[in-house]
Amino acid sequence: MKIVTISREFGSGGRELGKRLAEELNCDYYDKEIISEIAERCKVNEEYAEYLLSHNFPSSDNITLRNSFHIPATLQMTHIQVLCEQSNVIKEIAKTGRDCVIVGRNADLLLEDYCPYNIFVCADTETKLQRCREYAKDGEVLSDKEILKKMKRIDKNRKKTRAIISDLPWGDKQTYNLIVNITGWKIKDLVPLVAGFVNKWFEEE
Amino acid sequence: MKIVTISREFGSGGRELGKRLAEELNCDYYDKEIISEIAERCKVNEEYAEYLLSHNFPSSDNITLRNSFHIPATLQMTHIQVLCEQSNVIKEIAKTGRDCVIVGRNADLLLEDYCPYNIFVCADTETKLQRCREYAKDGEVLSDKEILKKMKRIDKNRKKTRAIISDLPWGDKQTYNLIVNITGWKIKDLVPLVAGFVNKWFEEE
Repeated sequence: MKIVTISREFGSGGRELGKRLAEELNCDYYDKEIISEIAERCKVNEEYAEYLLSHNFPSSDNITLRNSFHIPATLQMTHIQVLCEQSNVIKEIAKTGRDCVIVGRNADLLLEDYCPYNIFVCADTETKLQRCREYAKDGEVLSDKEILKKMKRIDKNRKKTRAIISDLPWGDKQTYNLIVNITGWKIKDLVPLVAGFVNKWFEEE
Repeated sequence: MKIVTISREFGSGGRELGKRLAEELNCDYYDKEIISEIAERCKVNEEYAEYLLSHNFPSSDNITLRNSFHIPATLQMTHIQVLCEQSNVIKEIAKTGRDCVIVGRNADLLLEDYCPYNIFVCADTETKLQRCREYAKDGEVLSDKEILKKMKRIDKNRKKTRAIISDLPWGDKQTYNLIVNITGWKIKDLVPLVAGFVNKWFEEE
């Protein structure tokens, strides 16, 4: 079974690479689908599930939740529940035994036992800015300064979430099999090259 | 003109990858050849040139050399001379206009104007240890502990040398086009895959 995980800096195009890679490898693709499933299980709407997953616990002492005076226990419980369901959903995907590409959500760590091929996608700031401008959601008009702020915030949250479950920092090269800097590439040109690594990797097993 | 630079953690197999890649791309390969040329120009023997290049200035205030009471001026001058010649030799290689693979020596930064494709090679500690055991120089018998110490020392020196000429740390993913973690691979299997990235990259220009 081939499982490919893609971690990425915000705006780098990792999601597009993942989607195209799944097509190239002719396998399942998971990204937003995971959110929908979590939302259903936790009985919250998708936007809220996504919000919780992309933000850390408001208290940095998130282990001893009951000691926090500021965060309502119900919110904390929902947060924990959403994180747990995320882990469950991802593990259930792997259990199906079907080849797949999973974008984000620390799937590389959650599925460690399945020995996935782990890819990290990065790009320089200008490339990411350009991409964010092009792919802004309908009606979303952000200045470059605002995009940069969003970029930093999201990547910072990814770093923090990673730190809860791993000693090695988010984006650390020891953690991944391949780190692709997308700067200067058209993503579609990268897809067969990355697929080459993936196919050879699993062929060798 | 295709210039590929390979930076690598000590013991990761970056040199072997570079050599094989040059064969695959049918282009020149530079590694030890650079040392020989530097040694000749600086009128020192190769071992000494290599020693100086793999060690930092003994004083951390290496800019204001004359203020150091501990380091003989002649040794400092040789050190500087060797570093300068290294830069000259690498730039002369690029000026020939011939395709090449250059291993180490911060060639990625020195040749920035030529837009090389920059690869970083890493591996987990066990893989590097295994490699160092296999490829020990004739007569060199080191314990694992000694190899690990050597590994740390050399990589630390690479980091320090890098810090003299760049704000971005050695091994930082923003600096390279591709970071290949060699753990679990046979290097010969990686060569055509990496060559795929290189060929496509230069085709696009």
